[in-house]
Amino acid sequence: MTTDPIRVIIDTDPGVDDSMAILLAFNSPELQIEGLTTIFGNTGTAVTTQNALRLVELAGRPDVPVAAGADKPLLRPFDGGGWMVHGRNGLGEVSFPAPRGTPIARRGAQFIVDTVLANPGEITLLAVGPLTNLAIALALEPRIAGLVNRVVIMGGSATVPGNVSAVAEANIHNDPEAAHLVFNAGWPLVMVGLDVTTRTIMTNAYLDDLRAIGNRYTDFIGQIVRHYHAFHQQQGLEGIYVHDSSAVMYLLDPSLFTTRDVYVDVEYLSPHLRGYTVADWHGKRQVQTRATVCVAVDSPRFLELYRQRIATIR
Amino acid sequence: MTTDPIRVIIDTDPGVDDSMAILLAFNSPELQIEGLTTIFGNTGTAVTTQNALRLVELAGRPDVPVAAGADKPLLRPFDGGGWMVHGRNGLGEVSFPAPRGTPIARRGAQFIVDTVLANPGEITLLAVGPLTNLAIALALEPRIAGLVNRVVIMGGSATVPGNVSAVAEANIHNDPEAAHLVFNAGWPLVMVGLDVTTRTIMTNAYLDDLRAIGNRYTDFIGQIVRHYHAFHQQQGLEGIYVHDSSAVMYLLDPSLFTTRDVYVDVEYLSPHLRGYTVADWHGKRQVQTRATVCVAVDSPRFLELYRQRIATIR
Repeated sequence: MTTDPIRVIIDTDPGVDDSMAILLAFNSPELQIEGLTTIFGNTGTAVTTQNALRLVELAGRPDVPVAAGADKPLLRPFDGGGWMVHGRNGLGEVSFPAPRGTPIARRGAQFIVDTVLANPGEITLLAVGPLTNLAIALALEPRIAGLVNRVVIMGGSATVPGNVSAVAEANIHNDPEAAHLVFNAGWPLVMVGLDVTTRTIMTNAYLDDLRAIGNRYTDFIGQIVRHYHAFHQQQGLEGIYVHDSSAVMYLLDPSLFTTRDVYVDVEYLSPHLRGYTVADWHGKRQVQTRATVCVAVDSPRFLELYRQRIATIR
Repeated sequence: MTTDPIRVIIDTDPGVDDSMAILLAFNSPELQIEGLTTIFGNTGTAVTTQNALRLVELAGRPDVPVAAGADKPLLRPFDGGGWMVHGRNGLGEVSFPAPRGTPIARRGAQFIVDTVLANPGEITLLAVGPLTNLAIALALEPRIAGLVNRVVIMGGSATVPGNVSAVAEANIHNDPEAAHLVFNAGWPLVMVGLDVTTRTIMTNAYLDDLRAIGNRYTDFIGQIVRHYHAFHQQQGLEGIYVHDSSAVMYLLDPSLFTTRDVYVDVEYLSPHLRGYTVADWHGKRQVQTRATVCVAVDSPRFLELYRQRIATIR
């Protein structure tokens, strides 16, 4: 049985683990990438946009449109992001030539709105950065909530602590007002958060094996991952998390994940709890909107699938 | 000396005083109306959009595009608005036939972005409702802040109390987060607030004179104003405020107004002070962004100009 590929817009702030996720996506026949929209987060939007262009070119898909997204959170200044993790250029301080392509004229949120309206029921939004572009798209054209196929995000934490504060995950923390809107839009939403992304670790040995493959993807990953790897080692981890690849994996094979359906809201008023994704496990609030929250993952199978996919360039 | 007309997009929630302002604008050679974008406020956006279409048709300008704007504030539900003032249909409970036209496919914020980008330095945004569309446009394409000619809003109060709470004016109160963004965007902003709009009163005698003119504009105004007039009488005023017309008047003849340049921010966190436009008269915050705030108006000259303009349909 063949199925139509999943048509997906990737909203992203590459970013080292973003890059690893995007290459996985391009190398997976289950997915048809309709475009990349960029966002601040791991570094600023001007830089992530250049990196997105580099990635479509590395993937041999310069035809895939890249639309530059928001420069800052909805209501807050951008605080500078995760450059200590990803390097100031978002690619682990490795210098690459400028991309040949340029972003399209339309902004990210407008590209999302236009693409969803033109393809009702067809488009999956895969968001692996702060959710500002999705929130702007919802504000601009609320009908997209009923017209997307579904929304899969890397962000939040429902059962484990945060990674940029006691309670908050970085993508949600970066624009909690936008995340609040995205979690309350009533569209089919899958949350791939720290609950699962910190359960899959690419160990030092795994990364050595990946480098040994020696194709253009693994060469690129091998270069950009060093800085990101060093940051994780400073944190006491012998290996790396690949947060964003978990969200791609959910699309490739949801059977890798155990999920629970639960209403999740995002705190944005309290400075201390900014970006806290509050899961209402016992249904205390009577709301219909539920997110599908990933709570467990089959990491060995995940890691094997990643290796297979990245090893053979389509 | 002839000057080029001011090219203006009117963002509006008609609305009785909105309608009176829009007819004034269409009947003033100083202005070239590029389009109407609609917003919730006096009633819901679906209704204000129909009313905007009625107004361009009444003005004999069905060629002027009407773009439907946001259905709700950026971060809040829409609380139902000013229907007790304007009637549930926004036109004083007077029944009118359905308009012949339909809104354009693009949403209001996108129309604003597209028009400003295509006409750098040329477009004035005249916003007489809640500022949600302007905030979405800024979030979607921040470059418009440097590309508009200027932004003139009816909203806020810097020297007088509020009209929907002790401190807040209705348009700002309806979406304080959007207003915060609009006041901090760094674009040239003129605030025409309650400071001046409540200084110009169309008395019962003035309204009788207006009705006696007997053209299609004054007939329309005569019908829709009754409900609005009755509301003002209940409040103890023998006459009506025409808030939105004050913002149009600022464009027609700024010499009618006394202004002061001051940084104004909008409170949105405190429930009690929601929508409070806080004017920093003594420059306590070191910011460059200043609004031009209207603090006094020559009402007799204003009222005479309104009557003249509405009396002779172009």
